[in-house]
Amino acid sequence: MSKSLKIFAPATVANLSCGFDVLGCCLDTVGDEMVISLSSTPGVKITKIVGATLPFETHKNVAGVATEALLKEYGKNIGIEIEIYKKIKAGSGIGSSAASSAGAVWAVNHLLDSPFTPNQLIPFAMEGEKLASGNAHADNVAPALLGGFTLVRSYSPLDVIKLHTPKDLFMTVIHPQIEVKTSDSRSVIKNKVSLQKAIHQWGNVGGLVAGLYTEDYQLIGRSLEDVIIEPLRSILIPEFDTVKTTALKNGALGCGISGSGPSIFALSRGNQNAIVIAEHIKKIYDTTGIDFDIHVSKINNNGVKILNN
Amino acid sequence: MSKSLKIFAPATVANLSCGFDVLGCCLDTVGDEMVISLSSTPGVKITKIVGATLPFETHKNVAGVATEALLKEYGKNIGIEIEIYKKIKAGSGIGSSAASSAGAVWAVNHLLDSPFTPNQLIPFAMEGEKLASGNAHADNVAPALLGGFTLVRSYSPLDVIKLHTPKDLFMTVIHPQIEVKTSDSRSVIKNKVSLQKAIHQWGNVGGLVAGLYTEDYQLIGRSLEDVIIEPLRSILIPEFDTVKTTALKNGALGCGISGSGPSIFALSRGNQNAIVIAEHIKKIYDTTGIDFDIHVSKINNNGVKILNN
Repeated sequence: MSKSLKIFAPATVANLSCGFDVLGCCLDTVGDEMVISLSSTPGVKITKIVGATLPFETHKNVAGVATEALLKEYGKNIGIEIEIYKKIKAGSGIGSSAASSAGAVWAVNHLLDSPFTPNQLIPFAMEGEKLASGNAHADNVAPALLGGFTLVRSYSPLDVIKLHTPKDLFMTVIHPQIEVKTSDSRSVIKNKVSLQKAIHQWGNVGGLVAGLYTEDYQLIGRSLEDVIIEPLRSILIPEFDTVKTTALKNGALGCGISGSGPSIFALSRGNQNAIVIAEHIKKIYDTTGIDFDIHVSKINNNGVKILNN
Repeated sequence: MSKSLKIFAPATVANLSCGFDVLGCCLDTVGDEMVISLSSTPGVKITKIVGATLPFETHKNVAGVATEALLKEYGKNIGIEIEIYKKIKAGSGIGSSAASSAGAVWAVNHLLDSPFTPNQLIPFAMEGEKLASGNAHADNVAPALLGGFTLVRSYSPLDVIKLHTPKDLFMTVIHPQIEVKTSDSRSVIKNKVSLQKAIHQWGNVGGLVAGLYTEDYQLIGRSLEDVIIEPLRSILIPEFDTVKTTALKNGALGCGISGSGPSIFALSRGNQNAIVIAEHIKKIYDTTGIDFDIHVSKINNNGVKILNN
């Protein structure tokens, strides 16, 4: 056995303003590369990590843990070797750990002639998320595996729906390279929310889903509103309000925090608008002295994909 | 001027389990009749009320108030006469006041050659709701005016979306003729909810909207779940748990409280299933000694409609 697969493991934007913990979408130009190979030596082995300092011990590596979860369910004593070429920065809020977990299980499944459906791969990848953050969340691994926009309708039982993804949607993402401690990012969120705000939020979730299916870009834009989490978390992100105001003034459909931050996303209709917004955001961040990356990407409707060697 | 219109003003089911205050749908076989006429005497006059004891004073009657709101915006001193043949019982939780308000403004708009779009009629009808309950809610008047399933994405500014309505959806509604005081129905609801439950709820709203657009009846069913309001309000409705369990066991996609109750709705795929469920619910309520009505109705995708004289 020496079958081998080189893949692109995409970055993802979770929450999407109104859909805290349930919505996510997949990027196309930002992601890791991985080479996954069948090996004659049983067990999962991380053989190479480039671009990041991550553990080689399988049980401490999110790709390793996710792969082991898959193999446990598969029930055969297979040998897997994993090379990770990390391009998504850790702690960026665009699904760095999810890319590794999702990429690994997607490729292994492909090498095994797809014993699992994409939806069935989600719980395996979630094991990687559990290792990374203590919480087996699905809002990044789901879009990485299914592509496009996804909804985690329920966690118990797990019920993930791939939503319709209009073709003309593009993301601008800025990653300010500051460290927001997960503990800070969580501690600002309150366990109780006002019913009025919750109603407002689920009105927007309904509006966003309807907007995606009807390709009503204005409705998508109006629905990208977060009255619960963003007001609390955005204070941890430098220039958030300026970036958001500028993005909206320059035609973005919506703008908000990517995942738990510190990355900020802006959603546009059309690549050109996404590029214009990237230029404006760059100008704002150039004045701060903070290092940052800016990405512009089409929404990737396929998720993980095979790269030519 | 003696133009006159006889209309059917439909009953509606608001909330639909997960969509408290934002979702609603329109019924087809349950509703009031109204005759609306242009008159040469300026002003709005309620000339006949059959089937209920309701005020004839225009400013105390929901149809009168809604019509006056429309005429104020229209800006001409028109004469309108309204006859109301009430068939929806007051306090039933299937949009009795909404039917009168929506029916009146829809018919007046039609008689005036439609100066307003259906969506523009919603705020006028909401004035009737404000008179009826002190709260200008839109989750009953919106489906009555637009038909099908509707979403109130936002109240401020008002943004109401008509959702796709699969053809094969039928409602069974039981109205137990008990009085649930609005004050009781409200007082059981808490102003704060847990974030975890709110997330669960907006996952379901997203799932229900996706299910409607994709005509995925199973997804619609899985999404008809209310973890916030139903557990609190259902204790006010006799046999709620038995009715719900029985409906689901007999094939209902979902079952919950209609509006603020006491009516209970069950949503089915197909008329036959809705009829079977009606029979089962009837048996349960026959044992209680409580008077009740049971309705079976297709989802009405048109809303208010003209009746032949």
